[in-house]
Parts: sequence; structure tokens; C-alpha cells
Amino acid sequence: MAIRTLSSVEDVLKARKEYANPAVAAPKLTGLGLKAFVWALEFQPIGRPLLGGILKKNKTLETLEEAIIPDAPMFYPEYTAQEITEPGVKEIDEESLKSVSRVQSALECLPSPAGSLQMKLKSEYPFVYWTIRDYAEAFASGHVTPSEVAERFISAIDKCEKSNPPMAFLISFKPDDIRKQAEASTKRHAEGKPLSILDGTLFAVKDDIDCMPHPSTGGTTWLHNFREVKEDAECVARLRKAGVVFVGKTNMSELGLGVTGHNAHYGCVRNPHDTDRHTGGSSAGSCALVAAGLVSGALGTDVGGSVRIPSGICGTVGLKVTVGRTTLKGVASVGWTMESVGPIASSVEDLILVYSAFLGSLPSDILHSRPLPPCLPNLKDDPRSSLRQLKLGKFSPWFKDVLDAEIAEVCEKSLNLLQEGFGTETKEVFLPDLDDLRNGHLVTCGGEYATSLRPYYPTVKKQMGHEPRANLALFYHFSSNDYVAGQQLRRRQMHYHMEAFKTVDVIVTPTTAMVAPLISPASVKLGESDLEKSGNLMRFILAGNLLGLPCVSVPVGHDSRGLPIGLQLIGRPWEEATLLRVASAIEEVCSSLMKRPKVFHDLLK
Amino acid sequence: MAIRTLSSVEDVLKARKEYANPAVAAPKLTGLGLKAFVWALEFQPIGRPLLGGILKKNKTLETLEEAIIPDAPMFYPEYTAQEITEPGVKEIDEESLKSVSRVQSALECLPSPAGSLQMKLKSEYPFVYWTIRDYAEAFASGHVTPSEVAERFISAIDKCEKSNPPMAFLISFKPDDIRKQAEASTKRHAEGKPLSILDGTLFAVKDDIDCMPHPSTGGTTWLHNFREVKEDAECVARLRKAGVVFVGKTNMSELGLGVTGHNAHYGCVRNPHDTDRHTGGSSAGSCALVAAGLVSGALGTDVGGSVRIPSGICGTVGLKVTVGRTTLKGVASVGWTMESVGPIASSVEDLILVYSAFLGSLPSDILHSRPLPPCLPNLKDDPRSSLRQLKLGKFSPWFKDVLDAEIAEVCEKSLNLLQEGFGTETKEVFLPDLDDLRNGHLVTCGGEYATSLRPYYPTVKKQMGHEPRANLALFYHFSSNDYVAGQQLRRRQMHYHMEAFKTVDVIVTPTTAMVAPLISPASVKLGESDLEKSGNLMRFILAGNLLGLPCVSVPVGHDSRGLPIGLQLIGRPWEEATLLRVASAIEEVCSSLMKRPKVFHDLLK
Repeated sequence: MAIRTLSSVEDVLKARKEYANPAVAAPKLTGLGLKAFVWALEFQPIGRPLLGGILKKNKTLETLEEAIIPDAPMFYPEYTAQEITEPGVKEIDEESLKSVSRVQSALECLPSPAGSLQMKLKSEYPFVYWTIRDYAEAFASGHVTPSEVAERFISAIDKCEKSNPPMAFLISFKPDDIRKQAEASTKRHAEGKPLSILDGTLFAVKDDIDCMPHPSTGGTTWLHNFREVKEDAECVARLRKAGVVFVGKTNMSELGLGVTGHNAHYGCVRNPHDTDRHTGGSSAGSCALVAAGLVSGALGTDVGGSVRIPSGICGTVGLKVTVGRTTLKGVASVGWTMESVGPIASSVEDLILVYSAFLGSLPSDILHSRPLPPCLPNLKDDPRSSLRQLKLGKFSPWFKDVLDAEIAEVCEKSLNLLQEGFGTETKEVFLPDLDDLRNGHLVTCGGEYATSLRPYYPTVKKQMGHEPRANLALFYHFSSNDYVAGQQLRRRQMHYHMEAFKTVDVIVTPTTAMVAPLISPASVKLGESDLEKSGNLMRFILAGNLLGLPCVSVPVGHDSRGLPIGLQLIGRPWEEATLLRVASAIEEVCSSLMKRPKVFHDLLK
Repeated sequence: MAIRTLSSVEDVLKARKEYANPAVAAPKLTGLGLKAFVWALEFQPIGRPLLGGILKKNKTLETLEEAIIPDAPMFYPEYTAQEITEPGVKEIDEESLKSVSRVQSALECLPSPAGSLQMKLKSEYPFVYWTIRDYAEAFASGHVTPSEVAERFISAIDKCEKSNPPMAFLISFKPDDIRKQAEASTKRHAEGKPLSILDGTLFAVKDDIDCMPHPSTGGTTWLHNFREVKEDAECVARLRKAGVVFVGKTNMSELGLGVTGHNAHYGCVRNPHDTDRHTGGSSAGSCALVAAGLVSGALGTDVGGSVRIPSGICGTVGLKVTVGRTTLKGVASVGWTMESVGPIASSVEDLILVYSAFLGSLPSDILHSRPLPPCLPNLKDDPRSSLRQLKLGKFSPWFKDVLDAEIAEVCEKSLNLLQEGFGTETKEVFLPDLDDLRNGHLVTCGGEYATSLRPYYPTVKKQMGHEPRANLALFYHFSSNDYVAGQQLRRRQMHYHMEAFKTVDVIVTPTTAMVAPLISPASVKLGESDLEKSGNLMRFILAGNLLGLPCVSVPVGHDSRGLPIGLQLIGRPWEEATLLRVASAIEEVCSSLMKRPKVFHDLLK
């Protein structure tokens, strides 16, 4: 009897098997069909064979269940010891109490601003978002106060939510709380004592991260009934120390179990670039608020692309840090081994300032490799010399495997501009068995979500939207051996990626394989299950989670309809600084290609 | 709606809840009943609800599935950084090629022998096993050659297997291969160039560890058809370098899935102290051969007590090292995060010599905490001074929770003798929620076995005995969330045990809660499933596996029927040397209480 044994990782790399799109075939459902499907999935005697059949048809669990995998499981992302090899970086102090001084260090890494605020305010400047330094200058010069900006924000939200369709940015919004924070900041500025450059800037928090005085619903109608919020999450507390004004809790895919940004209870978040289109998810409201020019920064969480996907299709910069680089304390977390909190901003400069304020883990976080100390790119240095030393890796089949050919064109163009402008070379890398990456991610995500939610699940499942319910039914289908075998695949994928990083410093991919998808009216009312769409949005993002690697999505242009396209940079463990350096250069070469969103709020003019 | 949340580990320790025996109620089956039960378990539409019902009735999965566990999962045993705190230890070189020099270092740790071989041979010495140093002296002096000892061994096995009932010690036995190895050793001794003190001593290997030229059946009738043995396991190779003569592959519970030592295909291993009784398992043949005086040492593997249980009830010394201290390379391994290869011998002195020859991990082994360097106790030092510094911890409810009251009496007596002889104090420790320890172990073991065996399972299950089949049906029942929740319990139990180790150096328990059980004739023919018996054999051993802690079982006396009783010592991570020091002292104070097994082979006289 022949039993299939997977080849050794070394042999797989030698064989250089042809790329196969790891797509999934499953019924595309909405309305009554979706309802009936979810009912069937949840009714064990039908659900078990039904799910078994779908998985079998897709050969999803074939490797997990039928092959001998010659590798030991790797239950967390683990890295061998590393030295700082990044050129031109500045190490920053990780201690939690020092967010203000860390923001100061970050500020010292930035080059002089491109022009004074007064100059920008007067000129018909090409489209840029107002930066945190613009706001700080505006507050310092008395051009405007944080309270005035806050009032403009409150009216803008009012307008957005009364529009047809509503933008559905926020789940929890308390104008009086915003006013109170802004007033305190206004007072500090009046006294000439702002806490940091961030003092008074508006900031949004995804609704699975605790932020007083709001509940954390996680996009559900019930989580906050079991999980009272008594204090800020650690990352929120650090940002608060730097003086940011929190505007509320942003809308998200329910429990993070969706990648379009639709929420059955709080509405479908609308893309500021085209309100008929999705924002992507799950950190939908966070990216949309940044894209609309309404906040300077936002926090998201990323277990399966939830920071990068909406950043990619909303045209924001989104950083998914190395798992463990930011703390999960105070996050209604469900992805212990794959999740991280990441910042979202409209420029790399703003992202660096925000990120420096809250990074750092705590002893209670799971951390299995001794991390390199956190670094920021010193952008005051001559970027050309350090960028010439870097090599970007490109797995060409990925650039061909996109739904919209323009995505590949725009991404390729940005790499060419980077080469022209900074001399950064791009070379080919090989990444095998991406279906294993997907399956390893699926069972890991499934096992950890299912564990985290199991005490609530029997009681609350009927209160949930049909898309997350279908996903949860799948997650509860996985066996313990699926989970452990998934960890064997994790070890294999870690090997392949680390081999690629021996020849390149950064791997580049399109962030998503499709631009912002259209919202179908039926799905708004009844939800939808469309694994093909999910696959197109998630295709390139899984290494960041299963392997815990740092990634950033940076906008590089638009398709012919004006929809944003993002480029994803994947870095070596702990080397966020290199990613930010490359992202900054890409932003520079692509800046003239950026377009203003249709829904855009100018809070300074 | 109220959902149960487990108290924080700190609160649990404060509450000091009363001890509850974590026993399991399940049908006790043999013969046709067992066959029907296994059929039902394996037929999913009946098996799922049936297993669900048994687990529910036992509240086995209640915590795993219904409670909010406020701790992150811990997927491997992880320890905080440690310093060498053990008094009187000698650090030894871990490098794999140096087994000979490592044995030499071990030898230098031993005090002078208790008497010369000639003296022992002539006198009616009180019962002791011949030690490795006795054999070395016999070979060096020409009293006997390794070839002569090998011939005596071959005839003894012949007799044992022709006896009624057969002892069923070995699965693979190749007299010509033994003769060849012994001849080479005889030649080396004749030339005055033995490889080490171990040269020519007889050694047995459990049948899940590769040892040329034997297949590795793992106690099955099929594993070797899929998994060809092409070289020695790493630990075997290291022992071979030191000159030991391998006598064959020992009988074991099929796939290690049993703790009595019964094997449906290769016979029920008989206890040398009473051939009507079990040896315990799964390393049954390894312990029985040592107990019968037929080999100087043996290798076993331990995922759930498999070295310690048979050592306890056969009266041998069995060491389960810290997970990662010995390599699993070449072991038909199924317990990645909990398994280790451990040595079995008839005295602590012999155990130290054998252990020193093969310890050490390889980069391919899973290792998640930086281990302390391996140490051996320097027994030439005054043991009184270092033993007075040590504190033993005793969880009294365990000593009361034994099936045979004599077990507690004999174990208590050994501790009193140790206090009298060496001044070692015993104090109380508290270990809460031992049902969580059992459930965490059960799902972890289940998930890892199920993963390791899943490619074979559909094809081979009908070729397996009914006891392992029933266990596997249970293992395949567990969901991925059971597995992950089990890892949350692992973190909690790690906390409790590490808190105990803040006040004591070693935790002492009886090795088993029952002495060697009687073999029922029906179970020999048809197998049996008796979870109550398993529970009594496994009750005290799980911390060694789920938490990866080092443990040793040392014989401390006999019950009134002459059946051996073992004391288990559980140590801090990596502190095997302290365990061996205490074990050596206990052996000394208990030596006059030791009795000769009924089946005993004197290969020297």
C-alpha cells in the first residue's frame, strides 16, 4: 500500500514545481440560500458530511489528513537568533512608560517637512493628506485648535452617517467624550505644553481593542455583555499618554471573520474612493476613516490580513508588525499565535510617529523568539545609499495571478520607479506549496478562534451574521489532528520563506489580487458567503500571520476607475524598520500618482 | 447568561480547594463486549455521540469546552531562564561524538565500588543486581567474556520464551547478530582496548527506537512496512560507540497506547516478580529484561509514563528526562511536545553510566527553552552535605489516593529513612486541579498521536488490537479547539508546578497508585479496556509529560506479596542531576529491603 510522504523541504526547493493558484471552490451564497446553508452546516448530522465534502472536493485537507509530513510541528512562529543587519536604522527604547520620548526619537528620524503648513494651506498643493506634523504646526501656530478640529470631525461623521447609503465608519461614537479630550489638548497647546507631536490629533480604534469609555463589541451584538471594558488596552493607553484624541470604535467584520468590511449589525463600511464598493476587512472602519481624511491614525488587528487588505484597497498605509512586537493586552484577541495590533495612517511618516508611540510587548504576551530591539529607519540619512544595498524579492507567478491585470501593472511600475529613483534591485524568489500556507493558516486560525469562542458559541451563534456563522461552523469542524498537522506545514513554510530571505531583504507582492469589490445590495441586507472573493483579497497576506512576519501595505497608484492599489512588503522577522524605509521611498516615487478619495474631509482648511 | 470563567492561577492557589481524584468512569470491557464497543466507536454516526456521552458523563471536556480559560495556550513546555543551582554536580560535555569520554566523566562521578567482584562472587552477598562495573571487572579479569555472557543470555531467552506462559520480552531477537557484536567486544577486551566501561554489557531497545539490523514495529504488525529502518537512532548510535551489545527490540504496548504491557500480537509481557502479573507499559519488555537480570540497561520512551510505570511495578530505576534532553532522532515518535527517550537500569549507578553515553539533543529536535547544560551528580562528594540542603515536596492527598495502602506506607518509610540517613527534609506542597492536568495531557497526547498516525489509520486500524483501537477512536474524536484549550490548561499547570518548585527542589509521589495488576486470562486472548486500571497506573506521572519535567522512578521496597513499589521524584526543568543524587541516596537507604525477582538470571556466576 502506498502512502504519500511529502518530499523534504530541501527537495521541494530543488524541484521548483510550477505555481498553482491555491483557490477554493465553494457555493457563492446570499439571502435564503445562505441562511439554509448555515442552518445545514450547524446541524451536525448534515453539517459534518457537507463540510467534509466541500473540503474533500477542494482537496483542502488532503495534505493535512492523508500525507506523511516529515517535519515536526511548529506551534508558534519561531526564528533563529538574529543580529541587526538593517542599514541606517535607529534603535528605540521599548519601555512602556516612555511613549512620549519614543515619539520624540521617531520625530528625529524624519527629514524636514516638504513645505510649511502656511505654504501648503495657501497653494493649490497636489493632493496630500494633512500630516501629523501639519496638525501640530496648525495647533502650535493657533491656526486652529484641537477642539475646532474635533467639532469639524463630529459634523463630518454626522453627515457621513446621514448620507445614503451611510458610510458606517463607527460602532461606538460619543461626541461629548471627544470634546472632553480635545478640550484638554487645546488647553495643553494654549499653555505651550503639548504632550508630544501627536497631541490633539484624531485617532480611531478598531472595536476589538479596549478604549475607554467605549464597550468592545468586536463587531458583535453580544461580546461586550460578557467582557466588560474596565481600562484602555495597553497600546491605547500608550497612545493616550502621547496626547491623541480617540474618536470612537470603528466598524469591523463581525469578530474579524470576514474580509469585505460588511457587518450585519452595524452596516457595510463604504470605501471613500467609491461608496458603492467595499473597504475590505476586517479593520474596515479604521482604514476608511484614515482614507477619508478624518483621522491621522488608527489601530487595527491582523490575524488574516485584516490591517493590510483594507489598507490595500482603501489606499492607506497599514503595518502588520512581527507577531509579538506589539502587545495584545486589552485586545479581545482570538489569534494567539498569529495576531498583532497594527497602525494605519495616510503616510509612512505618520505611521512611524504613531507606531513609535505604542510598540512593545509585555511579559504576558506570547513571545517565543528573542526579538531584535525595535528600530525605526533614519530617514534623515541619505536614503539612496541604504536602499541601493537592499534587494527586493519578487515571486513572479503572484504578479500574474491577479484578478485585475492593472494591479500587476501598477505594482510593477512602482518597483521600476523605485529602481530608477533609488537603485533598489528586484530579483526573483521561489515560494513553493502556497496551498499548504493557506491550509496551515486556515486550521490554525480555525482552532484558535474556535477555542476562544467556544464558551459563548452555543448561546450566541443565532445572534450572529450568516457569513461569520458559516466560517465558525467550518472552524468547529477541524479535528485536533488537523490543527497539529497545520503546525507541521507551518514549519515547512517557515523554511521556504527563510531560504528566500537568504537572498533578498524584502519580498514584494500586490497587497490584494483584486481592487475594492462592488457591494451587492442583496449582501448588505442578508450577508454573503463568497470564498472566491475572500481568496482574491487574502491570497498574498498569509505568510505575515502563519509565520508572524512583518508586512506593510503601501499605496502605489490606482486602476483606471480610480480605485487604490497597494503593494505589500514582507520583511525578515523584527525588521519593521527596513520595511518602513522601503515604504517611504516607494511613497516618494509614487506620490504624484495618488488621487483624492471621493469622500474626503479637509479638517484643516 | 452566566458563563463559567476559570479563576486566575493566583486565586486558585489562594483558594486551596480540596483534592479530588481525577478518576474516569468508563465500561470495563474484554472479549466480545470490547469488540462491539470498538466497532461502535469507529462507526462515526454511533461513535461520535457515544464518545461524546462518555466524555460528558465524566465531565472530561467540561472545562475544555465550556469554560473561559483566561490564560494563553502554551504549546510546548517552556521554562524561564535558569541557573545551575544544583549542589555537587558535574557538568558534562554534550557533543554527540564523545559518548566514550562522557561515560568516562560519569565514571569519575561514582564512589568506589561496594566490594570487588571476586568478593561478591564468593560471598552469599545480599541480593543485588550485577552492575556494569561488575561486568567490566569480569571481562577485564577474564572471569568471563562478552561472548560467554551473550550465549548465556541467548539460552535464557530461549527458556523464557518456551516457558508457560512465555515471558514475551522481545519482539525482534537475532542470536547471530548478538554473537557478532559480543565477539567484537570480546576481541577488544582481549586486546585490552575496551571502548568504555560499557563495552560488552547487554542492552535492550524498545521497539519504537531504531536499532540495526532490526525493524521497528512499534508493537504493531504494520508500521515497519511503511517505515524502513536504515540506520540506528541517534541515541542507539551513541551507545553503540561506547561498546554496548544490543540484544534486540523489546515488546511494548502497541504504539505505546496502553499501560499494562499487553500486546495483542507479540504477547503479554510477564513481570519477573510474579509471572501472573503485568509489567506495566508501554516500555514493558525493556523494564522486564532489566528486572530479570538479563540486561544491564535498556531504552524506553515516555509520553504518558511509559518508562516510569513499568519501572515502578517491575522494581527498576527509570529516568524520564526533561523533554529535549535526549534526542528523538530515529524514534518512531508520536508525542512531539511530550515524549522523551529514557534509560532504564537496575541501579542508579548503572543508570548514570548509560544515560551519560546517549544524552543530548540535536538541532532537529524541538527545543523551546535554552536548556541548562547536562550535569551528573558528583557522588564522590559527601552526599550528606548536599542532601541536607535539598527540600522534598509532598502533596499528601496523593499518598492517600492509592489503591494499595502498602504503597503509601513503603513510600513514606523510604522518605523517613532518607531523613534519618541524610537529613533531607520533606515538606508539604499544593498542586491544584489535577483533572486539568489529566485532560490537558489527554488531548495533547490525542492530537499528536492522531496526527502522526492519520495517514495509516484508515488502512491499518483493523490490524490493531482492540485496546489501542479504542484509544485511537477517542483521539480522533477531539476537535482542534479541544487541543488548543488543552494548551491553555498546560500553561496553568506549569504555573502551579513552578510555584511549588519555589519552595522545594524535588516533588515526591508514589510512581503508581497500584502494584503490578494480575493478568486476566481473557484479556490475554482478547485484550481489554479498563480506564480505571489505566488511571491507577498513570495517576502521578502526567506532569513529567505535559510539563516536560524530569522524573525518576526508584524502587523503595515491596508489598506483603513481594511486589515492587516505586517512588517517583519530579525535578525542576533540566535538573536531572539532583534527581539522580536523591535517587542514589534513597537506593542506599532502601537497599536492604530489596527482594530478588522470581524470574532472575545470573549471567556472571
